[in-house]
Amino acid sequence: MPGILNLAQIDLPVATVLTEQLEEVVVILERQLASDHSAVNALCRHIEQYSGKRLRPLLLLLTGLAVGRPPWDSSELTERHRIVAAVVEMIHLATLVHDDVLDEARIRRKVATLNNLRGNETAVMLGDYLISNAFSLCSSVMDPAINLYLGEVTNTICEGELLQLHHRDDCDIDERTYFQIVRSKTASLIGECCRLGAVLSGADATLCESMRLYGLYLGIAFQIQDDLLDITGDEAVVGKSLGRDLHSGKVTLPLIRYLATAEPQLRVEALGEFTSRNAQKLRLRLVESGAVADARGEATRFVEDAKGRLTSLSPGPARDMLETLAEAVISRRY
Amino acid sequence: MPGILNLAQIDLPVATVLTEQLEEVVVILERQLASDHSAVNALCRHIEQYSGKRLRPLLLLLTGLAVGRPPWDSSELTERHRIVAAVVEMIHLATLVHDDVLDEARIRRKVATLNNLRGNETAVMLGDYLISNAFSLCSSVMDPAINLYLGEVTNTICEGELLQLHHRDDCDIDERTYFQIVRSKTASLIGECCRLGAVLSGADATLCESMRLYGLYLGIAFQIQDDLLDITGDEAVVGKSLGRDLHSGKVTLPLIRYLATAEPQLRVEALGEFTSRNAQKLRLRLVESGAVADARGEATRFVEDAKGRLTSLSPGPARDMLETLAEAVISRRY
Repeated sequence: MPGILNLAQIDLPVATVLTEQLEEVVVILERQLASDHSAVNALCRHIEQYSGKRLRPLLLLLTGLAVGRPPWDSSELTERHRIVAAVVEMIHLATLVHDDVLDEARIRRKVATLNNLRGNETAVMLGDYLISNAFSLCSSVMDPAINLYLGEVTNTICEGELLQLHHRDDCDIDERTYFQIVRSKTASLIGECCRLGAVLSGADATLCESMRLYGLYLGIAFQIQDDLLDITGDEAVVGKSLGRDLHSGKVTLPLIRYLATAEPQLRVEALGEFTSRNAQKLRLRLVESGAVADARGEATRFVEDAKGRLTSLSPGPARDMLETLAEAVISRRY
Repeated sequence: MPGILNLAQIDLPVATVLTEQLEEVVVILERQLASDHSAVNALCRHIEQYSGKRLRPLLLLLTGLAVGRPPWDSSELTERHRIVAAVVEMIHLATLVHDDVLDEARIRRKVATLNNLRGNETAVMLGDYLISNAFSLCSSVMDPAINLYLGEVTNTICEGELLQLHHRDDCDIDERTYFQIVRSKTASLIGECCRLGAVLSGADATLCESMRLYGLYLGIAFQIQDDLLDITGDEAVVGKSLGRDLHSGKVTLPLIRYLATAEPQLRVEALGEFTSRNAQKLRLRLVESGAVADARGEATRFVEDAKGRLTSLSPGPARDMLETLAEAVISRRY
């Protein structure tokens, strides 16, 4: 499965640089996870298959390039960029492994989830192993500020997940809370990836903040699209169990919008379909009422906001690719 | 419940110093875990009740004192000691919360476990929140070496837990593997607490290593005692669900010793009791055969090894207390 951008099909030197750099990131990640115990290594090899889109390391490397100068070649990127890119991918993998436990998911990236194959216990512990390795790899950069920033982001991710759990089956959840959860659990890390890419390339504070906001808005759009794919996606294309949100009682944007505006009788029907986990009927209702299209429009607005933060970058292929990437977040089918 | 040492009953200035310092550690821990979300705070308040023995922060502070000079007063200890003491307690709390999920435990420190009260999902995520906060608090010390050491220890803890899961229901497990698991999942952190206490007080490398070994041996004895209490303890005194090891298929030292030496017929009977989770019969067998006493003897030898590492410290109340503490690890009933 290609990443979120199919770099192999982009005929630009920047794409070649990114492909090469991402390969080095994978080497760092695999080296960090290598254990003396073959049982641990076998588990790590399994979950490395989850790493498909590589959105977070790609964003970190690409912003690291984009804040630099022509010809945006690999000399803009240092070993620290690559190590921190491996760290953010490892944090992301950890959240996937624990999310699958939380959602009782069976399939991820077209392979069986670890909880499905080896039980929840092993999945919980392997997620912990990934988090721990992410922090110890991060510490090897010997820059405590990076540890501190990423530690704060992972605190925020966990708070977002806890808030989401707190609002399971809460059909009265409002948009403000929904966006607070999305920002915390997904967009905060993506924003930090973009900020760190810029920081590590020595960009000034204003530019670093613009990059963070680009990533934050892109991350919100990404999560809305994830929620939409969970409702309307094609399981064979998406490659993971769908209907997970409904199954685990997560109320997402289309349903929130629908419930906020529907006639009382229709509202009661929708609540009944939610409670009885009637995915088919609820999907039809959300599509036909326009609630899905409405949420898609919201994601598009966030993509535009993200792109608006790129104007302080020098024009060129790296900036163009950040634009393309923002669009890919909502046009993706998986 | 008093800590592993009942400091209030020890009429020594060192005990008063430790009591005061531990109180400050708790303040740091609670401040770090404070969230903007009341739902998160309620969960943290619940798990703070688990913090009973405070063995790890106590060891860090006490070694920090003991490597110093008379009168071993609070001037030996810095804010860094207290912060890192809060970090190791937070790491320990995280492992308790996830262990309870792994073992499906219902009771811990005489209160309901989080997985029991709020479900596995919340327990998994709160454990993650604790790990993440431990690392971000640790980063606030701005000493990347400490992050690196503790990151490596948490990697080791997770490897130990994964190895243990791999050997669930494995009655052919040998002592070497058992001790490898114990060293990784329990003793490595306790050893690191003692080493860090000494490091933060500016002790030389040889003394720091002696302190690490003191903690490592003490930690092994602690885990053997934990395994023994799980078989022979009084649930009302221990304050947590017992028979957890048998329930979750963990083969511990008394059973390993029994199986290694029993007559074939008795071995078959013991395996049958293990497989059918017949706690009562298996307990009787392990006690009457002397396997429990044998394992207790092993724990005692580790306590002696631990005490042997204290000879390079100046004699005095702090060193005496490290001796008393090592003995308390195996005389404890909870």
